[in-house]
Amino acid sequence: MRMRRHKSEWKLTMKPITYDNAPDHVRAVFDDIKMARKVPDVNNFWKYLANEPRMLKHVWDSLKDVMGPGHLDPLTKELIYVAVSVTNNCDYCMASHGAAARAKGATDEMMNELFAVVGLANMTNRLANAYKVPVDDAFK
Amino acid sequence: MRMRRHKSEWKLTMKPITYDNAPDHVRAVFDDIKMARKVPDVNNFWKYLANEPRMLKHVWDSLKDVMGPGHLDPLTKELIYVAVSVTNNCDYCMASHGAAARAKGATDEMMNELFAVVGLANMTNRLANAYKVPVDDAFK
Amino acid sequence: MRMRRHKSEWKLTMKPITYDNAPDHVRAVFDDIKMARKVPDVNNFWKYLANEPRMLKHVWDSLKDVMGPGHLDPLTKELIYVAVSVTNNCDYCMASHGAAARAKGATDEMMNELFAVVGLANMTNRLANAYKVPVDDAFK
Amino acid sequence: MRMRRHKSEWKLTMKPITYDNAPDHVRAVFDDIKMARKVPDVNNFWKYLANEPRMLKHVWDSLKDVMGPGHLDPLTKELIYVAVSVTNNCDYCMASHGAAARAKGATDEMMNELFAVVGLANMTNRLANAYKVPVDDAFK
Amino acid sequence: MRMRRHKSEWKLTMKPITYDNAPDHVRAVFDDIKMARKVPDVNNFWKYLANEPRMLKHVWDSLKDVMGPGHLDPLTKELIYVAVSVTNNCDYCMASHGAAARAKGATDEMMNELFAVVGLANMTNRLANAYKVPVDDAFK
Amino acid sequence: MRMRRHKSEWKLTMKPITYDNAPDHVRAVFDDIKMARKVPDVNNFWKYLANEPRMLKHVWDSLKDVMGPGHLDPLTKELIYVAVSVTNNCDYCMASHGAAARAKGATDEMMNELFAVVGLANMTNRLANAYKVPVDDAFK
Repeated sequence: MRMRRHKSEWKLTMKPITYDNAPDHVRAVFDDIKMARKVPDVNNFWKYLANEPRMLKHVWDSLKDVMGPGHLDPLTKELIYVAVSVTNNCDYCMASHGAAARAKGATDEMMNELFAVVGLANMTNRLANAYKVPVDDAFK
Repeated sequence: MRMRRHKSEWKLTMKPITYDNAPDHVRAVFDDIKMARKVPDVNNFWKYLANEPRMLKHVWDSLKDVMGPGHLDPLTKELIYVAVSVTNNCDYCMASHGAAARAKGATDEMMNELFAVVGLANMTNRLANAYKVPVDDAFK
Repeated sequence: MRMRRHKSEWKLTMKPITYDNAPDHVRAVFDDIKMARKVPDVNNFWKYLANEPRMLKHVWDSLKDVMGPGHLDPLTKELIYVAVSVTNNCDYCMASHGAAARAKGATDEMMNELFAVVGLANMTNRLANAYKVPVDDAFK
Repeated sequence: MRMRRHKSEWKLTMKPITYDNAPDHVRAVFDDIKMARKVPDVNNFWKYLANEPRMLKHVWDSLKDVMGPGHLDPLTKELIYVAVSVTNNCDYCMASHGAAARAKGATDEMMNELFAVVGLANMTNRLANAYKVPVDDAFK
Repeated sequence: MRMRRHKSEWKLTMKPITYDNAPDHVRAVFDDIKMARKVPDVNNFWKYLANEPRMLKHVWDSLKDVMGPGHLDPLTKELIYVAVSVTNNCDYCMASHGAAARAKGATDEMMNELFAVVGLANMTNRLANAYKVPVDDAFK
Repeated sequence: MRMRRHKSEWKLTMKPITYDNAPDHVRAVFDDIKMARKVPDVNNFWKYLANEPRMLKHVWDSLKDVMGPGHLDPLTKELIYVAVSVTNNCDYCMASHGAAARAKGATDEMMNELFAVVGLANMTNRLANAYKVPVDDAFK
């Protein structure tokens, strides 16, 4: 009975791409992130996403465009990001956007109230499903 | 071969409880909702949830306590509610809390930006999962 | 500019397989379902799943084995099925397993209490995520 | 280029509130939990949730009201709680409500059967979605 | 008791933006989609997303870049898109990417097998959660 | 005040069943897995699932039938499995089916492109929800 190839023959997890070993087009995105966010280095998220340079660029272009000043203030947008990340149980995203919310002024009281709203919404979402509540005419 | 009981023998879906046919303890919650929200009647959600009077009271008590003025402004909390409901694909909750957000001042531009943030967060949540990005020391 | 093939050239949605037009190996599963459940015809779920006869057989074999009398009583298992289906917002599954629960004796009061538990669990799941609550030693 | 505030300037994660450092209204809820559950101390979940005293009270009031003896027996309700928590992949909730189910009499065989039902429901939920199975008239 | 603003005072749902009433920067994206896909008009998705022109552009730029010929063939990528959409129960996305998969050569047999894999994965995902299966050394 | 039974009185988590301590009917499934996959031992998933021998057999029968050569090639099916597992955030399943995809020839470039598609699909699923995009006639 022939055994399958040994695991060391393939690379199982992606490694982060650091600035020093990044190709030029990745480094250009890293530079733009550092400049826009006034940070000395990019977060782990960007270093891993750099394994797919197309998405690195698209995701950054989108976030830069949408998360900055706009129709909602930047703090509100970070809170929304945290709300989605808690609902989906994404540890990294809770940590990074939680930190971003803090940096933009979120207090403990605001974070606690955010968690309360997220918990309640997840509950009432299922209660509305369970009872198959028809949409009120007033909401149409 | 004996067939199972005919479906008409059991009630398959819950019916809404209207004010007129509500027992006193349900009517008391309905009155409190109408008073607090300055509306002539409660939404369908409450009429269906009234089938479980304990939850009718608990959910209303929680929402009244959390969704009103607090550490986050009421509009921000409605936007967070919509963000969770879009993520979970709850039609009723998108409609009702979307309407609540509109009533509290959300413009088309704000709703569009909200949807953009929700879309991006759902994407980056999965990218962070896929790459198993470790949390940066700075976020710990 | 050449347009893509017109949609009528491909079949967009699967059609149900009825007993009369089912091949023998599908009909054998249908017969087994009808016999085991004492029903004159199989539900729509099975007619659609018959498009993939391997899964028709595997899913039926699994459900027949697990959902019948066992370590949990059949009604409890139907309630669990409904709880998952409400959480995932699967309309068909809520309807079919809700009906199965009713047929096995679930009362309105039991269904309402079930929905209450499902709502609360979906809320506290997110609160535990949000606060990153460490598992107590007593639960390890 | 000015760097952002250093992380030590804001508090990134919530700390648990222990009985000794809890304000009176939190301590009152803790006392009620300890009394109702006949335990010497509350679980980590309550200590973290105490950061948002309003939710501490509402969640406890709801759980006390719904999870005790009612139309479904307490063990069934714990199993439903576990089913939702497995579906949502909430580690803490699986551990705490799994322990509660055990304490109320769930055997290994019952837990294994529960997991089987949860797995099957998550599969058939998606198969019903994929085939867009219409609800049978008999279920309406 | 003063009633809230009447619903007609705010716009509850977004309207699609058609080519004729689209501003120039939206029309430019529409033109690019029509050209790239060789279709006479864009799908409803793009007409609604045009309410948020930034996302219209970012989403289209990303999809054009990623969904075309690359390291995976275009049909495989459409199947993956359908797999995610079935898991999340997104009706529109199942329909549109199902049609795209068909147009790229997916047969009934392939779609049925796809649904089978999606169903099985959703089941084993929860079984792995439930048993808290540790990752084998061979996969690290 | 009487305390609840001490935790050591019940078994909180399931233990894996190894070949040596497996009953005959479990060992038969293990043998079949080892034979079919040409591996010296089964993965942890099967050792834990063996706590529920009925599901061990059903899940294996299903996977053996569906994941092998069929209408879609085995690599495509592993990629679909990973796509679902990333969407559901199942660590074990990402690791095991990621390894299976690698063993069947998936390159880094293919895995990165897969993650890109999964991220985009999760985003557009929510954008389609948020805008309540009606299905185009051409997709019906």
